[in-house]
Amino acid sequence: MANTRERIVTTTAELFGRQGYNATGLKQIVAMAQAPFGSLYHFFPGGKEQLGAEVIRWSGAVYAQLLAAIFDPAPDVATAIEDFFTGAAAHLQETDYADACPIATVALEVASTSDTLRQATADVFGSWIAELTERFVAAGIEPGTAWNLAVNALGALEGAFMLSRAMRSVEPVELAGAAARAAVEAALPSAVAAAAGRRPGPRAVSPRRPRRVGGH
Amino acid sequence: MANTRERIVTTTAELFGRQGYNATGLKQIVAMAQAPFGSLYHFFPGGKEQLGAEVIRWSGAVYAQLLAAIFDPAPDVATAIEDFFTGAAAHLQETDYADACPIATVALEVASTSDTLRQATADVFGSWIAELTERFVAAGIEPGTAWNLAVNALGALEGAFMLSRAMRSVEPVELAGAAARAAVEAALPSAVAAAAGRRPGPRAVSPRRPRRVGGH
Repeated sequence: MANTRERIVTTTAELFGRQGYNATGLKQIVAMAQAPFGSLYHFFPGGKEQLGAEVIRWSGAVYAQLLAAIFDPAPDVATAIEDFFTGAAAHLQETDYADACPIATVALEVASTSDTLRQATADVFGSWIAELTERFVAAGIEPGTAWNLAVNALGALEGAFMLSRAMRSVEPVELAGAAARAAVEAALPSAVAAAAGRRPGPRAVSPRRPRRVGGH
Repeated sequence: MANTRERIVTTTAELFGRQGYNATGLKQIVAMAQAPFGSLYHFFPGGKEQLGAEVIRWSGAVYAQLLAAIFDPAPDVATAIEDFFTGAAAHLQETDYADACPIATVALEVASTSDTLRQATADVFGSWIAELTERFVAAGIEPGTAWNLAVNALGALEGAFMLSRAMRSVEPVELAGAAARAAVEAALPSAVAAAAGRRPGPRAVSPRRPRRVGGH
């Protein structure tokens, strides 16, 4: 039965990415997952909202792995961030502009209608931002700046995905990737030192924690 | 009867912005618009898809006016672009994170499911990009660069709206606004001239048209 549960989650994730939360019916999920209808309520007694929240968090974890798979082998973080956008653009084209961010459509649909699901999307966005921030800090970028860069890079990717899917062109994602690379490059210690008219000295990373997005 | 038609369009626009296309039912539209159900098919014989396409285009025109209202009195385009983000952030907070882009949710929902509606969102994004490009070109920015800046600014705004609505924080929109301002400032003739180590000379705007996003 573990396989049935997994199939339900992965199928729902694919449908959420392609068409969002509201267009995805439970009947469509069980049909595509080749699961008996009853298994859905067996595994997710809270119904669609519980399944939705789990799928959002699961997609978040999968995409965090994708981030690691691109950043780990890259020569530097500026190259890595652009590679992430370039890879996303290629994948978008291969999937006929269907497969971009797995939680973006759901995030907009639920933002003002389900606090449970909204919180799940906020947690995932927050985890991606934290992961990116950590990578930038490890490259010597000051934590406050690293946090700002991470928020802007994720926002730029999400917005570019939207434009690229609507316009059926990879140009918005590619332009956003080039801009993200330039922003990261300008914040690297060597660039900061050069801008200050001196050679890079020992790395001085401020001990304060990055600002957090949250509350209202 | 002209008033009824208008009420249907403005009500639908509000619902699309808040909850998207799929969650918005025709019954909810006529109830909120205080319109007889039959009037909907009288004005929109093509039903929800026809109404949807018209609402997307109408929202696009309204927001183009908002852009003009912010850019026209601004002292320069760098200030104007940041003002646009700052104003959007304030409005987002005032509306409890509900009122951001009127077509964003719909754009993601329909990108892979309705070509009629996808095309309407692509046309609106394209019109906003063209309007922004024109403003940047009028400020002396080279047309190709102006086009890239416009695509990136709109993408950054859309993505930041998504993060801000999910995280219930205006920080993503404010950070994106500061980055957009910096990108525009760096492309202004005075900055380009300074970077090249010379004083700004007479404006030399290339006659070639900005690259268009489109096709696939």
